[in-house]
Amino acid sequence: MTLSELCSTHSQTLADAIKANQERTFHAHWPEAPSGKIYGETANDDGLARFKGQRNAKFDRLSGGDEWVGDESSPYGFPLGITYPSSSVAAVVERASAAQTAWQSLTPTERASILVEALERGSKHFFEIGYATQHTTGQGFVMAFQASGPHAFDRALEAVAMGLAAQGSFTQSVQWSKPMGKFAVNIDKSYRIVPKGINLVIGCSTFPVWNTTPGMFAGLVTGNSVIVKPHPGAVYPIAIVIAELRNVLVELGLDPNVIQLAVDTAAKPLTLEYVQHPAVQVIDYTGGSAFGTLVEQESIKNGKVVFTEKAGVNCVILDSIEDLDKAMDNLAFSLSLYSGQMCTAPQNIFIAESGMKVGDATVSVEDVAVKLREKIDALVNNEKAGPGTLGAIQNPTTVGRLGEALNLGLAEIRATSAIAQPGFDQALSHSPLVLRTDVSRSDVYTREWFGPISFVITTGSFDESLKTVEQSIRQHGALSALVYTTDAAKMQQAEDAIVMAGAPVAFNFNSFVWVNQSAAFSDFHGTGCNPAGNATFADWQFVTNRYNVIGVRKQA
Amino acid sequence: MTLSELCSTHSQTLADAIKANQERTFHAHWPEAPSGKIYGETANDDGLARFKGQRNAKFDRLSGGDEWVGDESSPYGFPLGITYPSSSVAAVVERASAAQTAWQSLTPTERASILVEALERGSKHFFEIGYATQHTTGQGFVMAFQASGPHAFDRALEAVAMGLAAQGSFTQSVQWSKPMGKFAVNIDKSYRIVPKGINLVIGCSTFPVWNTTPGMFAGLVTGNSVIVKPHPGAVYPIAIVIAELRNVLVELGLDPNVIQLAVDTAAKPLTLEYVQHPAVQVIDYTGGSAFGTLVEQESIKNGKVVFTEKAGVNCVILDSIEDLDKAMDNLAFSLSLYSGQMCTAPQNIFIAESGMKVGDATVSVEDVAVKLREKIDALVNNEKAGPGTLGAIQNPTTVGRLGEALNLGLAEIRATSAIAQPGFDQALSHSPLVLRTDVSRSDVYTREWFGPISFVITTGSFDESLKTVEQSIRQHGALSALVYTTDAAKMQQAEDAIVMAGAPVAFNFNSFVWVNQSAAFSDFHGTGCNPAGNATFADWQFVTNRYNVIGVRKQA
Repeated sequence: MTLSELCSTHSQTLADAIKANQERTFHAHWPEAPSGKIYGETANDDGLARFKGQRNAKFDRLSGGDEWVGDESSPYGFPLGITYPSSSVAAVVERASAAQTAWQSLTPTERASILVEALERGSKHFFEIGYATQHTTGQGFVMAFQASGPHAFDRALEAVAMGLAAQGSFTQSVQWSKPMGKFAVNIDKSYRIVPKGINLVIGCSTFPVWNTTPGMFAGLVTGNSVIVKPHPGAVYPIAIVIAELRNVLVELGLDPNVIQLAVDTAAKPLTLEYVQHPAVQVIDYTGGSAFGTLVEQESIKNGKVVFTEKAGVNCVILDSIEDLDKAMDNLAFSLSLYSGQMCTAPQNIFIAESGMKVGDATVSVEDVAVKLREKIDALVNNEKAGPGTLGAIQNPTTVGRLGEALNLGLAEIRATSAIAQPGFDQALSHSPLVLRTDVSRSDVYTREWFGPISFVITTGSFDESLKTVEQSIRQHGALSALVYTTDAAKMQQAEDAIVMAGAPVAFNFNSFVWVNQSAAFSDFHGTGCNPAGNATFADWQFVTNRYNVIGVRKQA
Repeated sequence: MTLSELCSTHSQTLADAIKANQERTFHAHWPEAPSGKIYGETANDDGLARFKGQRNAKFDRLSGGDEWVGDESSPYGFPLGITYPSSSVAAVVERASAAQTAWQSLTPTERASILVEALERGSKHFFEIGYATQHTTGQGFVMAFQASGPHAFDRALEAVAMGLAAQGSFTQSVQWSKPMGKFAVNIDKSYRIVPKGINLVIGCSTFPVWNTTPGMFAGLVTGNSVIVKPHPGAVYPIAIVIAELRNVLVELGLDPNVIQLAVDTAAKPLTLEYVQHPAVQVIDYTGGSAFGTLVEQESIKNGKVVFTEKAGVNCVILDSIEDLDKAMDNLAFSLSLYSGQMCTAPQNIFIAESGMKVGDATVSVEDVAVKLREKIDALVNNEKAGPGTLGAIQNPTTVGRLGEALNLGLAEIRATSAIAQPGFDQALSHSPLVLRTDVSRSDVYTREWFGPISFVITTGSFDESLKTVEQSIRQHGALSALVYTTDAAKMQQAEDAIVMAGAPVAFNFNSFVWVNQSAAFSDFHGTGCNPAGNATFADWQFVTNRYNVIGVRKQA
């Protein structure tokens, strides 16, 4: 396998991805179904076996550390016992710096092709990645397979394609010839892509691959050495991806330290030390808002580029709908999926106290609330679909938050209860709690209640609902917004208000797409312009801010 | 004139500009020669008449202010006496905000076409802009015509083309259709370009149009309302451009306050108040480093986007050359042009104490210095070319700096003297001072000596010269670098070192292109990655960081 063979092998994949980013219709390079027909009849068994074999063992697909550390345990109730090679911040940064020059001297197409090769190899391990994700994040297996496998890999490919398109948008060299009347003056010009420096990617515990691959691959395709600092509770899934990429680099005779896994533990966190290292010049962060804001401040004051996805408060407005059952089915699934542990999960459901228009009838707030409860019950109590949809709670703090919500003393639209996860008696799993309050209780609903906690909030009118949502987006950020209305004027009003406040908006979802979802090559994830973060997967800024272009001119 | 007519009229201009940005070979939409054959036989006389008529008068092509203020005087020795309408910061910002929504609701192509129309109209005033520039900046007329006319307008068009290309790089709306086995789920998606907010463009006294149009037009094409806050000493040239754009907007029935001129005076500066206004979200700055760094800090700490071009210390390395006369002709011109008042003008000329290789011979430092002096003398003493090349000194502080340099006690390679500017007895004009020192005097040469001041600095070797230059770029920034070497290995070494340090580099210029120059559509001006500033005219970041993209999804 030579570099030029790789470029030829993956040129169509890259061309298709670039085209998909332009056209933004449905595109998936890796099918999302965890199916043996697609990924091989033994793929599931093989992946499960690898997962089981990896437990209580060194992750020796990576090497080169000074010690072996690890801190992961499954939200389904057992420790993973995996350890990873770990080095000092100084050693990791030094290796990244040493690897940088050769990497940036490759062409963007060469870098992109290497990255696609690594993704293709990684895709052979989607099932292991799925199990690794399930047992670090608590996601149900199907979701874990999709989110950390095909969806995350498509987001990676999207970022690679954006980076390649940006860098390839002008010539690498040209003879510039300026006519000067009777003669011309000629200058040979070339344009060098100079990466900003080492790119640190800080992962989160709930989406350790999906939220890491965009920054990781955007950094790599634009010539930066990348250090991935995963959440200490969710290392395993991304370690598999990194190991595959390092294998490809080694096979090509390149320094694998272009990409490194930097593991720390909850007891001895290293994130801030990486952020503050002067050689680290680009930082991607996904995680909580408080630490994220600190990372932003530390980065910005030192002139570093920082991309963040922090947390927001996602809102829904109920105004009118043709089919209440379909709408509440859709909303119930969004509230239940991964127990509200998605950054895009709805939390606050605003409805005018006069109720909701359904066709020509009016349905009271009470009846809408009952319908929502019934739909959640139907999903949660469905033995086949329920446990896998809810998954387990990643962090015990989230269970504590459920208790805190119960102590608010609000009326319960739906009570939470422990949920059995078949095969995992010790799993931490709880069904959605839905509370009822009104617009006066901004002390309650302007907070993020991360986890399976939501509020139905009555307001005086649609206008008040919208105004409250708009203000919430501006002050507290949002990754999603969902509005049900059949009124064209209200739809335009809501679109304008929510978009101007800086959030994306979805209308009348009543089918097999949910507001929590964000599709690679089509949906920009994160708007970058509200307090929930400054990054967008994957707009131009997401790639172009990672490098500069420097001109070289020679008298011809 | 309708909007759709404008789009059709200017579509080829925009397509050509987009293509030029990709191919980066020579492109000029407006010819640079101040020739009656191109711009009309009476264009010069008309422009001069308008200039004379504007002196000691209100600039009533703009209106709407609460008072009339003005502070300009010609470096050629007379006050301009022009006053401009001025309003409070709050009033200007309020008008900009009110104009924003309608402007951002236009398509990128509509915005771009309006902007090209304004540039075409402005180009009818190139001669007046030239005289206005000459008598605010001190530039000789031909340079003033070119720099503020065709070159600045080409930079504006370049930015418009980049902004249009970026915004047009993906579809505005699409029906997304996801296959789900036996059926498909359909979502209607649209993508809205949301400008960051009001874009403030802070101008400088030496290039009031060339350094203002890129940010101004980049901001406008991406949907932002723009406020131009010119240097109080150089308002007139950009006021002409702004008035023409406002005329076009009014004719189209649009709010002209999309673009406003915000004039202040040296006695009562308003820049910081604009920078700190919360509605101002994007800031372009050109000017000195100290204030520029303050603008950066104020912007960044409040989460604003800031593009800066501050000052650097530009270096030359002399190693080897085929034809010393041609090289020194080129360098002498670069040192003399506008009396070293360009941000790209060379200051420090490093040469190994063993001298310079010229063909097979070695020429001593003394003889190289003599040759440089002779070439400057020949240019400066040329009655036809000299005064116009040097122009006048914009700021009396610069003359004081000449005195400070003389007090260093260094050997003079070339003495400075007052230069007569025919027709302007009171002009502040001084020929280049060239001093000699060695590499030990970093206290001298690591400072920026803005104006007609340069140093020939001996070092132990080419390697020491290069290392010193590299360090200087990293610590003090640079807008240009120039190396003379015929040795391919040294050329590669210098290219790598200077590019990695973050500066552009030119080699062996010996003809009618000078290191000070930076050509629109071909040369990126500013690298954005050294202390001289973070902006590049016009890379992707320069346009993409001014807006966000927000998705709207509707169940189909």
